[in-house]
Amino acid sequence: MENLNQVEILLVEDNPRDAEMTLRALRKNHLTNKVLVVGDGEQALDYLYTRGKYAEQDYDCRPKIILLDLKLPKVDGKEVLCTIKSDPDKKMIPVIALTSSREERDIFETYQLGVNSYIVKPVDFDKFVEAVNEIGLYWLLLNQQ
Amino acid sequence: MENLNQVEILLVEDNPRDAEMTLRALRKNHLTNKVLVVGDGEQALDYLYTRGKYAEQDYDCRPKIILLDLKLPKVDGKEVLCTIKSDPDKKMIPVIALTSSREERDIFETYQLGVNSYIVKPVDFDKFVEAVNEIGLYWLLLNQQ
Repeated sequence: MENLNQVEILLVEDNPRDAEMTLRALRKNHLTNKVLVVGDGEQALDYLYTRGKYAEQDYDCRPKIILLDLKLPKVDGKEVLCTIKSDPDKKMIPVIALTSSREERDIFETYQLGVNSYIVKPVDFDKFVEAVNEIGLYWLLLNQQ
Repeated sequence: MENLNQVEILLVEDNPRDAEMTLRALRKNHLTNKVLVVGDGEQALDYLYTRGKYAEQDYDCRPKIILLDLKLPKVDGKEVLCTIKSDPDKKMIPVIALTSSREERDIFETYQLGVNSYIVKPVDFDKFVEAVNEIGLYWLLLNQQ
């Protein structure tokens, strides 16, 4: 992702294999060229608030959706979510937790923090492609921002 | 909708023609028998908080999704949304604003109040059926509660 102004999907995922699987699923749905992948919560916030390595760049830091893993290094996914949903200016960006956790506590806490949607990553790749397709259709085409 | 324990979709819509169109779209997607339609915001809250005409009944008052029109008599849609999203116990119910308003102020305020998704009702019936289908697929099958 070279041109930050074209970012439509911010994918926050620390596990390279999971990131690659999501990218493969997005590629099948012709969405790859609009994705920025960052590997931890700090980078996600740096991108959203034009800080750190994004500080000198000029771009609209409001992607159309954020796919957020919950277990992240540096700044945890829940903290990233909390920051976004406490900020009137960023709150409108739909955040979809895309996670392997089915733990009730995670689901409950994430909804309390204001996540828009909580998706458990399907283990099977074909099902995963389908899920990513539905996420894309729904949030990029149907939902109004 | 006789058995309140089977309610999966709470449709809050005061315009009978719009309610009928949504029901027709849901019927095409085989979801009609799990919908409760209420005509104003007060009834929606009465159902969710087992008050008024729902006071004497015993049911789980957490539908899987709420389709909420914004312009409603008695209690406005935004107030219904605010009540749900301020209540830790109800906050987890996905609320989808299904409205004819494209006004930026409505979209902005509704996201500020914590709506999960904002859908502008398509005018064309076939497109509306498609939209309702995507809403159903996404929120009833993919999203985790």
